[in-house]
Amino acid sequence: MEAWNGFKGKQWKNEVNVRDFIQANYTEYTGDDSFLEPIAPSTDKLWTKLQVLFDEQHEKNGVYDMDTNVPATITSHEPGYLIKEEEKIVGLQTDVPLKQAFMPFGGINMANNALSSNGYEPDAEMTHIFTDYRKTHNQGVFDAYTPEMRSARKNKIITGLPDAYGRGRIIGDYRRLALYGIDYLMEQKAKDHANTGNKVMTDDVVRLREEISEQYRSLGQIKEMAAGYGFDISKPATNAKEAIQWLYFGYLAAIKSQNGAAMSIGRISAFLDIYIQRDLENGVITEFEAQEMIDHLIMKLRMVKFARTPEYNQLFSGYPIWATLSIAGMGLDGRSLVTKNDFRILHTLTNMGPSPEPNLTVLYSSSEPEGFRTYAAKIAKESSSIQFENDDLLRANWGSDDAAIACCVSSTVMGKDMQFFGARANLAKAVLYAINGGVDEMTKAQVAPKFRPMTGDTLDYDQFIENYKDIMDWLAELYVNTLNVIHFMHDKYAYEAPQLAFMDSDLKRTFATGIAGISHAADSLMAIKHGNVEVIRDENGLAVDYKPTTEFPTYGNDQEEADATANWILEYFMTQIKRQHTYRNSTPTTSLLTITSNVVYGKATGNTPDGRRAGKPLAPGANPSYQDGKFLGEKNGLLASLNSTARLQYTNALDGISNTQTINPNGLGKDDETRINNLRNVMDGYFDKGGYHLNVNVFTNELLLDAQAHPEKYPNLTIRVSGYAVKFRDLTPEQQADVISRTSHDHM
Amino acid sequence: MEAWNGFKGKQWKNEVNVRDFIQANYTEYTGDDSFLEPIAPSTDKLWTKLQVLFDEQHEKNGVYDMDTNVPATITSHEPGYLIKEEEKIVGLQTDVPLKQAFMPFGGINMANNALSSNGYEPDAEMTHIFTDYRKTHNQGVFDAYTPEMRSARKNKIITGLPDAYGRGRIIGDYRRLALYGIDYLMEQKAKDHANTGNKVMTDDVVRLREEISEQYRSLGQIKEMAAGYGFDISKPATNAKEAIQWLYFGYLAAIKSQNGAAMSIGRISAFLDIYIQRDLENGVITEFEAQEMIDHLIMKLRMVKFARTPEYNQLFSGYPIWATLSIAGMGLDGRSLVTKNDFRILHTLTNMGPSPEPNLTVLYSSSEPEGFRTYAAKIAKESSSIQFENDDLLRANWGSDDAAIACCVSSTVMGKDMQFFGARANLAKAVLYAINGGVDEMTKAQVAPKFRPMTGDTLDYDQFIENYKDIMDWLAELYVNTLNVIHFMHDKYAYEAPQLAFMDSDLKRTFATGIAGISHAADSLMAIKHGNVEVIRDENGLAVDYKPTTEFPTYGNDQEEADATANWILEYFMTQIKRQHTYRNSTPTTSLLTITSNVVYGKATGNTPDGRRAGKPLAPGANPSYQDGKFLGEKNGLLASLNSTARLQYTNALDGISNTQTINPNGLGKDDETRINNLRNVMDGYFDKGGYHLNVNVFTNELLLDAQAHPEKYPNLTIRVSGYAVKFRDLTPEQQADVISRTSHDHM
Repeated sequence: MEAWNGFKGKQWKNEVNVRDFIQANYTEYTGDDSFLEPIAPSTDKLWTKLQVLFDEQHEKNGVYDMDTNVPATITSHEPGYLIKEEEKIVGLQTDVPLKQAFMPFGGINMANNALSSNGYEPDAEMTHIFTDYRKTHNQGVFDAYTPEMRSARKNKIITGLPDAYGRGRIIGDYRRLALYGIDYLMEQKAKDHANTGNKVMTDDVVRLREEISEQYRSLGQIKEMAAGYGFDISKPATNAKEAIQWLYFGYLAAIKSQNGAAMSIGRISAFLDIYIQRDLENGVITEFEAQEMIDHLIMKLRMVKFARTPEYNQLFSGYPIWATLSIAGMGLDGRSLVTKNDFRILHTLTNMGPSPEPNLTVLYSSSEPEGFRTYAAKIAKESSSIQFENDDLLRANWGSDDAAIACCVSSTVMGKDMQFFGARANLAKAVLYAINGGVDEMTKAQVAPKFRPMTGDTLDYDQFIENYKDIMDWLAELYVNTLNVIHFMHDKYAYEAPQLAFMDSDLKRTFATGIAGISHAADSLMAIKHGNVEVIRDENGLAVDYKPTTEFPTYGNDQEEADATANWILEYFMTQIKRQHTYRNSTPTTSLLTITSNVVYGKATGNTPDGRRAGKPLAPGANPSYQDGKFLGEKNGLLASLNSTARLQYTNALDGISNTQTINPNGLGKDDETRINNLRNVMDGYFDKGGYHLNVNVFTNELLLDAQAHPEKYPNLTIRVSGYAVKFRDLTPEQQADVISRTSHDHM
Repeated sequence: MEAWNGFKGKQWKNEVNVRDFIQANYTEYTGDDSFLEPIAPSTDKLWTKLQVLFDEQHEKNGVYDMDTNVPATITSHEPGYLIKEEEKIVGLQTDVPLKQAFMPFGGINMANNALSSNGYEPDAEMTHIFTDYRKTHNQGVFDAYTPEMRSARKNKIITGLPDAYGRGRIIGDYRRLALYGIDYLMEQKAKDHANTGNKVMTDDVVRLREEISEQYRSLGQIKEMAAGYGFDISKPATNAKEAIQWLYFGYLAAIKSQNGAAMSIGRISAFLDIYIQRDLENGVITEFEAQEMIDHLIMKLRMVKFARTPEYNQLFSGYPIWATLSIAGMGLDGRSLVTKNDFRILHTLTNMGPSPEPNLTVLYSSSEPEGFRTYAAKIAKESSSIQFENDDLLRANWGSDDAAIACCVSSTVMGKDMQFFGARANLAKAVLYAINGGVDEMTKAQVAPKFRPMTGDTLDYDQFIENYKDIMDWLAELYVNTLNVIHFMHDKYAYEAPQLAFMDSDLKRTFATGIAGISHAADSLMAIKHGNVEVIRDENGLAVDYKPTTEFPTYGNDQEEADATANWILEYFMTQIKRQHTYRNSTPTTSLLTITSNVVYGKATGNTPDGRRAGKPLAPGANPSYQDGKFLGEKNGLLASLNSTARLQYTNALDGISNTQTINPNGLGKDDETRINNLRNVMDGYFDKGGYHLNVNVFTNELLLDAQAHPEKYPNLTIRVSGYAVKFRDLTPEQQADVISRTSHDHM
């Protein structure tokens, strides 16, 4: 086949196997960034226009325009362009740049709420159709919820559940479209359909057969959508430009039809480099043109927008959509997967300036070439816009060198795994339930079973631990079963056909749970054990405040007992999670990740025994507690903090462990070169010790305080929060205050 | 409670238990029909107007009017009336009498086909909504079907499957609405919801919880619909008129929102008699008024219409909707359940003339009072519009004296059982597959597995039986799994919430299969064994015709070996059915019932070894073969035929055994009284011997031939076909010919 001229390897030609194609064809790059080219005129024109639109969008509170009566499907909109003649890569979510589509399948009430909260009038006919004829995910979930689930949700012991928004986190392997063309993928799905189930039609078999039919139909619609833009994607892409375009069409179908919480694009860097390298070697394109195409693709990912409700914005502030793009990584054969394309992709942050999206994610290993590690550290320092994940842990635990990050820290193997995303349980609040016999300290409602409360003026550690286990047992069961309802209904009413169409029909499914407040839980256990905590009770005897009176070990300060306690909580809770029945026999995992929901969680959580004040944000993800009272906070510097985080057992949190750090530039050294080298060395050490993830921010708190006071001076100031990057000006005032209150390390 | 003044009993007051209410309160009637009152002026006016509309409908090929763009729901239409001021009982399916609703949930293509085949333009927006936003049952089924299922369906070894129409056959216990009012029923459903599943959310539990929510919502909509007609149905009915009205509103919700193949109303006779009796005793109403109300209710049931496709009309000719209404029966305590109301209901056939609907069904036992049995025989003879089922078998096998017939011969216990209706497999065609190694004799396609075909000029019985078992094994597995797909999707896309809302949440579900061609299969086995069948082959060696040369025993002539063979086939096939996995662990049953699909089945079935000619209709249900060639047909008279049918083992065909007979009036005796008594005696004997069902026609073939030639002379000529009554003029020409070709017994 002409499209494959010059490509080596065999296996990928006989089956859908993109990884094999990459391994047989990619060109490792061990040099530095000196080959990179500046911004092209076309890119500049497009980006300039887009920034005007972004400003307009910002002035309109994040909404440029909204559809009110065109339910979004793959083919619901005519082609749209930013500046048609300048675009090397085309395709918009709707017919107008930044216009947000109307997506009612997840829930008509939410879709209408997104409209009305932004000043748009919901359409009566649409409301009628999606109430009386087409049931939505949200309605399905609430039809099946138990009173206990509603109560746990209302009282926020479990929260952020994807029952009022799309679960997201499913990454189609859109590379398949470029490599094979859509006709072959449709043939493969037809073959899978013929071979799914053998005679006996259990519910599972029937469901999967229907899903494969839906996937097949989606592929046909993608072909139609691409034809609208003037492209015939039946056959494999023949050059780099087509490869990028085909791949993007695959991703575009997903974001046209699904408003998932994280709409990641996956690991596409080395794959596309193979096409670019072939074109470069054949003299078809120049490096300048290669960078131009990559810039245009990345620009498309910067434009993705979804209609959102105020409740959603509170959970995930600053309009993230997690178009997570994973680069670099090591191969199972010992070669690094670093190509020039990893440089090109990072270089977009220079050519077009920093940006929250795509959520650029470096799969990091100290075995990768120094040139790349140095360049990545440089871009991290300069942009505070990228994150790092431990590629050594990924390969060891996911059995693949083709894993990608969905959302923030969740790994899935491209085209092989999907995840049932499941938000998180608040284990800091669970500490308070253990003390108060299942009564919520904020609402005074009996939420957990009526376990025996702890009485008296002090807390006995042994008694507490027994209570805490009871609460975790109850919570794990309730939580997993709540998610079982959600995912059943999501598959039923908001199935992600165009994403799953680019994945194997015989998927491995993980069942992702999550933990919020791990540091506060661990510190509270340490306080109860060592801190001589005085209990303060309200008029009904409910414990409402705690005063630790003695110093106690705290998580995040390289103190082994505290770190081991955090690990014990993780391991105990995960063990309980694993005991449960999970939807479609998916494999349970958990994460230590809150994204920005730490603020909402903290607001709903009372005073904790470690001295943290009621209502204050929880530390995000696996981060150590902020300074709060005299015993809390990172007191031993950056490296001690990283050592504590690195001790958390990844095998118990295979959905990821999020760690966000801010480093004062001066803490890294006196000049840029020193700072870059030091940051690279810090990461080498952290990841070699088993740290899983790092969000790197390099700036001073003074900068943030100035940006808080004078937002107009910093339109593009981008920072990493838990799991994504965000424009500082787009954060809620509460979120801004939270970010400022975090530790900014000024020494190692 | 005032509404219950004078009602006895306790259990039914503490739980939903209509049977207990009936047992505690009904008044058995052992007299004759002398108390009955003639038609009331209001009834006459209404019925006269309705007949004009019926004529108009007949002239327009069965369609008075159709909705094109109002998807039917419980509340989709404004109230409608025939003659508002004359109607004692109100409520129409749409806003205009006889106007057929638009029901796309089962399948937009079918709904559109029903429109366009009747000259109405399908609505583009509706097509868009029910293609792109709201998937339908039909689409779901075909998304999951295997190629083998499609092939079996196309080649009509399995046919009439409810994948292109609603499965129906679910009887809500609408009496509950009258007895308890809707608020109490909603409370009970809320309680059931709270108590369904315990913590662990398996798919089954989630599905059921959602369904109960849907049921609850439906009840609220029924309340709203009734309020539109000016009735507050929150509380129990306080008198007979309200009881009839409340009950009808429950049924009306079902026929407003579901186009099921059989929309039966159940066993309502003794229940309503209790209210009538109370009002009569209290002097609130007269017998004349009681009859008037019953006539009006029955008239409502005569008006039910659904939009149908030509394919459906071919299967089930003459627009049946099976508003089956079951009356009489014996109680478990030995009292008969016969009340005056059973007389009143049969009397509607006199007051308003014969009618196909409601499908009046007498639950017959020779233990019932002679007055009633005589009256039922009289009405059967005069109207040829009613059917009889063996109540002794029902009680013994369903453990209840509150069972009712859904459709034709299928029993379900009111409010306790639902049925997954599943059409039928053609066991006559299976005989031919056994001979030809799974190749279809009509299409020449390889449909069954490539089993070894039988070669040579004659057929070896032992070899044939082994082949036949292989085919039945294959067919049972494929058939049940095809139904598993259908019912999964029906629940998913066309769930019957308003019917199931009037049933227990914890239902017993039967999984109904069916057998077509039992007599031809049995006769073919007898021919192969005893008939020295010569085989005629086509140029490819495929057996295409058979010439039995020696007399052989045939089913339907009281010949034990043939009857035992029919039973062996039934038992063997049912045993294979029972081995399979069934959707929702439902209990497998089977029926010997073809309805009028015997014509379609026969058309698709080649020459059979018994001498039956290719393309000729199969004998319907469990009926013996028609005369065809020199060896077939009922040669030994009515009683011999009934004896054969009565030998079929009901315990192997718990979904029912259908038997349709036509008796020449002269065969029954010389005068009306003799004829009535003889018919009653025939039925006493037949049912005492274990016969399950009898469709009674009393007329001569000459009458039918005259009606065929001069339809204008017989606008209301009604006859029983397999499982229902039909106006002769509404049958297709093929169906008319089939009916005429049947045996009309002129001697016992």
